[in-house]
Amino acid sequence: MCESHEEDGRFEDVSIGFVGGGSRDWAGKMMTDLARQHTLEGEVRLYDVDQESAEQNARLGELIQDREEAIAEWDYRAVPSLADALSGADVVVLSTQDPPAETFAHDLDIPAEYGIYQSVGDTVGPGGTFRAMRAIPQYREIAAAIREHCPDAWVLNYTNPMTVCTRTLYEEFPDIKAVGLCHEVLHVKEDLAAYVEKHRDVADVDGDDLRVNVKGINHFTWIDDVRFRSEGVFDVIDAELDSQLPLPGGFEPGDLDGETFYVDNDQIALDLYRRFGLFPAAGDRHLAEFVPWYLNIDDPQDVQRWGIRLTPSDHRIEHWPTNERQRERHLEGTEEFEFTDTGEKMVELMTALLGGEELVTNVNLPNRGQLSGVREGAIVETNALVTGDDIVPHAAGDLPEQVRSMVRTHVSNQETLIEAGFAGDLDLAYRAFLNDPLVTLPPEDARSLFVDLVDAERPYLTDWNLEEATVLEA
Amino acid sequence: MCESHEEDGRFEDVSIGFVGGGSRDWAGKMMTDLARQHTLEGEVRLYDVDQESAEQNARLGELIQDREEAIAEWDYRAVPSLADALSGADVVVLSTQDPPAETFAHDLDIPAEYGIYQSVGDTVGPGGTFRAMRAIPQYREIAAAIREHCPDAWVLNYTNPMTVCTRTLYEEFPDIKAVGLCHEVLHVKEDLAAYVEKHRDVADVDGDDLRVNVKGINHFTWIDDVRFRSEGVFDVIDAELDSQLPLPGGFEPGDLDGETFYVDNDQIALDLYRRFGLFPAAGDRHLAEFVPWYLNIDDPQDVQRWGIRLTPSDHRIEHWPTNERQRERHLEGTEEFEFTDTGEKMVELMTALLGGEELVTNVNLPNRGQLSGVREGAIVETNALVTGDDIVPHAAGDLPEQVRSMVRTHVSNQETLIEAGFAGDLDLAYRAFLNDPLVTLPPEDARSLFVDLVDAERPYLTDWNLEEATVLEA
Amino acid sequence: MCESHEEDGRFEDVSIGFVGGGSRDWAGKMMTDLARQHTLEGEVRLYDVDQESAEQNARLGELIQDREEAIAEWDYRAVPSLADALSGADVVVLSTQDPPAETFAHDLDIPAEYGIYQSVGDTVGPGGTFRAMRAIPQYREIAAAIREHCPDAWVLNYTNPMTVCTRTLYEEFPDIKAVGLCHEVLHVKEDLAAYVEKHRDVADVDGDDLRVNVKGINHFTWIDDVRFRSEGVFDVIDAELDSQLPLPGGFEPGDLDGETFYVDNDQIALDLYRRFGLFPAAGDRHLAEFVPWYLNIDDPQDVQRWGIRLTPSDHRIEHWPTNERQRERHLEGTEEFEFTDTGEKMVELMTALLGGEELVTNVNLPNRGQLSGVREGAIVETNALVTGDDIVPHAAGDLPEQVRSMVRTHVSNQETLIEAGFAGDLDLAYRAFLNDPLVTLPPEDARSLFVDLVDAERPYLTDWNLEEATVLEA
Amino acid sequence: MCESHEEDGRFEDVSIGFVGGGSRDWAGKMMTDLARQHTLEGEVRLYDVDQESAEQNARLGELIQDREEAIAEWDYRAVPSLADALSGADVVVLSTQDPPAETFAHDLDIPAEYGIYQSVGDTVGPGGTFRAMRAIPQYREIAAAIREHCPDAWVLNYTNPMTVCTRTLYEEFPDIKAVGLCHEVLHVKEDLAAYVEKHRDVADVDGDDLRVNVKGINHFTWIDDVRFRSEGVFDVIDAELDSQLPLPGGFEPGDLDGETFYVDNDQIALDLYRRFGLFPAAGDRHLAEFVPWYLNIDDPQDVQRWGIRLTPSDHRIEHWPTNERQRERHLEGTEEFEFTDTGEKMVELMTALLGGEELVTNVNLPNRGQLSGVREGAIVETNALVTGDDIVPHAAGDLPEQVRSMVRTHVSNQETLIEAGFAGDLDLAYRAFLNDPLVTLPPEDARSLFVDLVDAERPYLTDWNLEEATVLEA
Repeated sequence: MCESHEEDGRFEDVSIGFVGGGSRDWAGKMMTDLARQHTLEGEVRLYDVDQESAEQNARLGELIQDREEAIAEWDYRAVPSLADALSGADVVVLSTQDPPAETFAHDLDIPAEYGIYQSVGDTVGPGGTFRAMRAIPQYREIAAAIREHCPDAWVLNYTNPMTVCTRTLYEEFPDIKAVGLCHEVLHVKEDLAAYVEKHRDVADVDGDDLRVNVKGINHFTWIDDVRFRSEGVFDVIDAELDSQLPLPGGFEPGDLDGETFYVDNDQIALDLYRRFGLFPAAGDRHLAEFVPWYLNIDDPQDVQRWGIRLTPSDHRIEHWPTNERQRERHLEGTEEFEFTDTGEKMVELMTALLGGEELVTNVNLPNRGQLSGVREGAIVETNALVTGDDIVPHAAGDLPEQVRSMVRTHVSNQETLIEAGFAGDLDLAYRAFLNDPLVTLPPEDARSLFVDLVDAERPYLTDWNLEEATVLEA
Repeated sequence: MCESHEEDGRFEDVSIGFVGGGSRDWAGKMMTDLARQHTLEGEVRLYDVDQESAEQNARLGELIQDREEAIAEWDYRAVPSLADALSGADVVVLSTQDPPAETFAHDLDIPAEYGIYQSVGDTVGPGGTFRAMRAIPQYREIAAAIREHCPDAWVLNYTNPMTVCTRTLYEEFPDIKAVGLCHEVLHVKEDLAAYVEKHRDVADVDGDDLRVNVKGINHFTWIDDVRFRSEGVFDVIDAELDSQLPLPGGFEPGDLDGETFYVDNDQIALDLYRRFGLFPAAGDRHLAEFVPWYLNIDDPQDVQRWGIRLTPSDHRIEHWPTNERQRERHLEGTEEFEFTDTGEKMVELMTALLGGEELVTNVNLPNRGQLSGVREGAIVETNALVTGDDIVPHAAGDLPEQVRSMVRTHVSNQETLIEAGFAGDLDLAYRAFLNDPLVTLPPEDARSLFVDLVDAERPYLTDWNLEEATVLEA
Repeated sequence: MCESHEEDGRFEDVSIGFVGGGSRDWAGKMMTDLARQHTLEGEVRLYDVDQESAEQNARLGELIQDREEAIAEWDYRAVPSLADALSGADVVVLSTQDPPAETFAHDLDIPAEYGIYQSVGDTVGPGGTFRAMRAIPQYREIAAAIREHCPDAWVLNYTNPMTVCTRTLYEEFPDIKAVGLCHEVLHVKEDLAAYVEKHRDVADVDGDDLRVNVKGINHFTWIDDVRFRSEGVFDVIDAELDSQLPLPGGFEPGDLDGETFYVDNDQIALDLYRRFGLFPAAGDRHLAEFVPWYLNIDDPQDVQRWGIRLTPSDHRIEHWPTNERQRERHLEGTEEFEFTDTGEKMVELMTALLGGEELVTNVNLPNRGQLSGVREGAIVETNALVTGDDIVPHAAGDLPEQVRSMVRTHVSNQETLIEAGFAGDLDLAYRAFLNDPLVTLPPEDARSLFVDLVDAERPYLTDWNLEEATVLEA
Repeated sequence: MCESHEEDGRFEDVSIGFVGGGSRDWAGKMMTDLARQHTLEGEVRLYDVDQESAEQNARLGELIQDREEAIAEWDYRAVPSLADALSGADVVVLSTQDPPAETFAHDLDIPAEYGIYQSVGDTVGPGGTFRAMRAIPQYREIAAAIREHCPDAWVLNYTNPMTVCTRTLYEEFPDIKAVGLCHEVLHVKEDLAAYVEKHRDVADVDGDDLRVNVKGINHFTWIDDVRFRSEGVFDVIDAELDSQLPLPGGFEPGDLDGETFYVDNDQIALDLYRRFGLFPAAGDRHLAEFVPWYLNIDDPQDVQRWGIRLTPSDHRIEHWPTNERQRERHLEGTEEFEFTDTGEKMVELMTALLGGEELVTNVNLPNRGQLSGVREGAIVETNALVTGDDIVPHAAGDLPEQVRSMVRTHVSNQETLIEAGFAGDLDLAYRAFLNDPLVTLPPEDARSLFVDLVDAERPYLTDWNLEEATVLEA
């Protein structure tokens, strides 16, 4: 696939197209990852609808490369068009986001007016649904451009809603070599490593020391097997659960007010494990949104009892300006750029795809058997072997009936959104919205919420046929 | 199959075993149905755990036969054991109910304490789940007795939860000739007939004049085709919907206080039609319980906005004594017994099964293809040809994705309850409980509600392994 | 659907488009059927690529109408185009055939040169495969014309290969109201009626007195239930089998030389029943072609041991001229036209579809659940309720594993032929050809046979991409 | 799972139970493999129904260990019972065979009398079917003993018919950790490596240098992707095919008379590739038996045209005595034992399972999604990750329609044989026999062949209910 040259296990002239290259935080981390390794060198072309921001990142990239910690050589260039980013790319990285103040903030605030509180709001629930509705037309366009400019490139998608974005890429361009990537499972492996240390009395266990069998859909994957040095250690979860009962425990509303918004105490994961017998492999803030129970609260503070906080829209709105200001300080030299890596497997993954060392990790791909009991073609998350120009998913087996039922509800909604998005059929999207477990509102309120969200985000829904949508009728 | 003799289109010596023969209202109606027809004659053996009540019904049967309106000859006999009722039966009728004060009242009241209001409470939701949990052991016993005493008899089940009871019969005795019967679809056909009259300007349209394609699970079946005199008239539903918009319309909390508890104004059916494009074929009180939206109310009176009332537990508790007192008055002759038929197709159905006139009607049977997209073996409701010693379901086709998703959630729960009930596994039943759309409670409340219900109905859960149930642990 | 008027249970002004209206035998029978009944009257427009022959049939139709036995009034008109036949049609009848000397004769003779003998040659095997390959483009054209000229008409297809022709209609025009009709099951019911008479010692049992559960694909359907007056009488097949053992019995090569080519002694049906436990519902001459065993003979005469004859190509070639000469004599008045009906259910079926008396009969329709275990959309044959403007298939259940395996092989081939035919992909068609159970030839011979057939029938394969077919390469 | 100790990447005290430990050739090779590696040491307990032969092998093992080439230390011990071999085993190796003169010879000779020639006769066809029928009771017994004595051991099955033997193990003991292993795919990778060398002009390509995606059932697996250094090189097969056309080429009957019986010239593999577009991953002698074409010959010599020979029964009969005599010479010291390895991945596989270096290789396991389009639970062959105490199959995707159809026919037969074998139902086994593609005999001949085989192998069919088998009736 790749025009890059391998020399002594190193790949030179790797060409990366970065769509969403104006990214205010993720770009910096990716550039750090690229700088701090030995195997890949080449060029990154940054494209963003906000070209200014892409150019800032190009300058930041140069600054990073100038640091002495930088090992590999990378050139960064902001480009004015999608075509420029994609042409000749070996790898395409997708990490885009609409302006939070115009979108994400509404995704959170408007449902909250109706009593629907979302801990993240980017995957399922009303927020995730509208994020999907906005993303489908955008990702169709990206897929079409990839088909035109670099059909053989590997496409690494980091954008949420992961499942719907990746599914859109395949629906538009079935031969695309795209994969959806997410670090939630990696974080959970770190948690499990800590359980192993604690309950098996061993030291220095790392997430990478564990092998897990993971299966489900992104942010709602499940683990039914954990191995440490060939030994099954799934029972450490029972031990941890016993040590934490009763659940939820020890947190009262307000206790977490000073904490980061991303605080996570495994309360929900352990509670779901207790109820369903499999351990969910995503952070509690994501898990909470897939089922109607944890966010069924009258006061948003109540969610703190489960050891998590809601992320307020203010924080989302401030995210961009804050990061922009920091980037400026980095570029001005008034603040030193900190080398923090993404925690992602991106470099290992690119290396493997280019023909370097193989890797087994969790990925999001169209189902071709890896998740039994779920329809073929739906985007599912399981382990896979990443190897030279190929990703081969593991056959992870089936889910227990009751977990499968929950997963299937979301798969059904995601497939419905894809069908609706490609047809521009808002009424069909509304059906997926209604079937979302967080949408337990009385019918008129559900409709009103949906209409309010459409109205607030109308500029981002231009591809939808709003004129003929009966749900918008008085 | 049948030892009865056919003479000139009449079947004599038909032997019916009635399990639940002490029934306080349904028995009277069935006996009326049997009296007021020309094709079937024979004997009914009434068995009930409350033998006294069965004997009262036997006397009531004689009284009915003495009436001049009685056409066919039937003997009624209360028998002391299930074996006595079943031995030699051509047809077995199942219509049982646990004492409402000890069961049904709890099914309604305890969830209400947690804010879960149920309009009926006998099919899904917390009430339907516990009714299922009580019924499974009972219906296993009945199925085993049928296998022993009358394996070739046709078994007509009228007991709710229809799906779980019928599924239990087949799980215990796969060769049973059982069918679940329900009049909800018949009532909906009457409603549709009224729509045809109104919007096509024709007079005297009866439900039986329409042919509908019906598919789903009992109390949550859906119609996608309506024919009147060969003509497709599905569009009358659009016309009716237009005439009723906005939904819900015209009802305020309190408006229905004086009405029967069974009042139904098609508001929910039309609203579901509007959202999902198929017309649901059950009363609104049933439909409301399958989805989380209509009963998501703070004040129980609020449900009146949808043109229905909740049936309070008082009414359920009073149901038996009221009917018993009336039966006594009938037997004493202080009140005249009114000939009101069941509105069921029971006589036509028995006649067809015995070899008389064929019939197409809706039935509940294990899926063998009649409802595409739903697992084989699950009990589904579609039309079927009822003919001599056979019932052949129609292949009703598939459901639209989003309706199928809702139906499958319940099928998953029902299958889980069957598995749990046969294993006595309360923790597994709890998973079905949690996955019920009405159970959106915060986790600890959900668990607490489940435990409360177990405690309240413990005498009816003797077959369950309560000792090892972790859900009951502190 | 229909513009015809119903008066007193009679339908007037029924408009029938007959494609293949020059048919040399079937047309006469259909016209007889139409004349000899009370419920339908109207017009038949005869279209044929051989317009002369259609005109002869129009004259024959008038002659039939002039007979005193003619009850219903029908006008016959030959029309010059498909559009003329279809426009305004309530019902379309399809019964076409390519000139036997140029096609059917090759289908039989060329395989015979390779030692593949076919008893009929119109359904599967090399002959059926090439008939399918010729028919697919033709039936695409017909389906497209129906979509244009009479999309609401009911289309009754009588053309073989039944499955592929009907499947083509649906593939081209998914909303078509088409059904494939075949009398083989009806004939088998007559055989079964004779078994009932013989082994139950009852008189005057007619095929219509039996109810059978039939399932499979056309000419390879299977019966697993037979009812007579509500009673299961499947055991008469065992009795008949016992009376006929050993199989095959009593026939030596040459014994049937003087018999009709259509002779059938149930030897193969009973043998298949003995091996697989279900009774096949098609004539032995058809059944023999679906499995590799009965026609695995060195001398064509050997097949007579199974009580059947091969139909020689001479007979097929002579069929048209013979029938043409007879039609001329009928028209000249030198030979009296004999009123023989088709034995088909066509009139009853049209009547039911127009809104008259309902009918349950076997039909070929896309699978939507009626044959469990076989893919959705494949054309399968089961019973169905034929009613006003609708045909509702029965859910016939599953087949035993080993029968299902045989059926699936043919379904796979038929679906492959459809895919190949719509793509014009001859290499893909060749794969279906190779997978046919009759094609057990050594590989080079198989290829050579395929090429010979393509060469012989090249004028009828114009829609196929022969240039790029690697199978045709030296 | 394992009691063995790991020291510096070496595993000591590995306990292996070898069932079929009297094996006359495979044992020697396995012992060689064990001797010539550095990672595993321990004990092998040899069990065989022919205890004498097991003891000879134990002595041979000692002799091998005494050789200076022997690196790892292994103790060999013949044990008198299955229990002795299994108790405490970390790994169980299964490699059994019935005495060829009493079984295998009949499997080949009796069908040949009916004109059915088999190139191997151990997988499908009449021979493979009877081998399966003999093996099922034996492998049930082995599985039951494993459940009792070493339920956590890994079971490596090398016995044919691979699919049926492995399936039997799982049917009897669903929690067994068994895997079926076969070197055919490894050999095909060597062939492909040679193609790469030839058509890409590179030197020293080894089978292990290629990555293939393999899927199907043992001896009838298919490759749809070949990678060499990350590059897709599937096109070398086209190049090779072009260079070999026309097929078959260059071999006339008799040409191979002097060759080994195992000669293979890729003629059939390339021919199947040409027809179906996927490359079959087994030797031609195996492939020929799965389809009716290549062995449809009048003279057994004719098969040489495809570059293979039939293995005559003489050779099979002589195999044991020849090997026994050689083993005696080895033990007497009159002939030097040659160190030839198995070419199997056994040592690597055991090492990986014990927690050593991971391995991706082809394995036979119950389908849980790895082969889409084939029923769950059937034994399928795909790649898998072999790791510490676990084997995780790759999701290999689907097969093209026409290949899937051929594969499914065999899966259906294999599942039927399992059902038949567990029920002792000979008539059901006969249905599988009839549906085998090689059984194209006229019906009476098919029955006669089946009966002859039953009669010849009656001592090995003791678990079958022969008394009630109608196929054996006159």
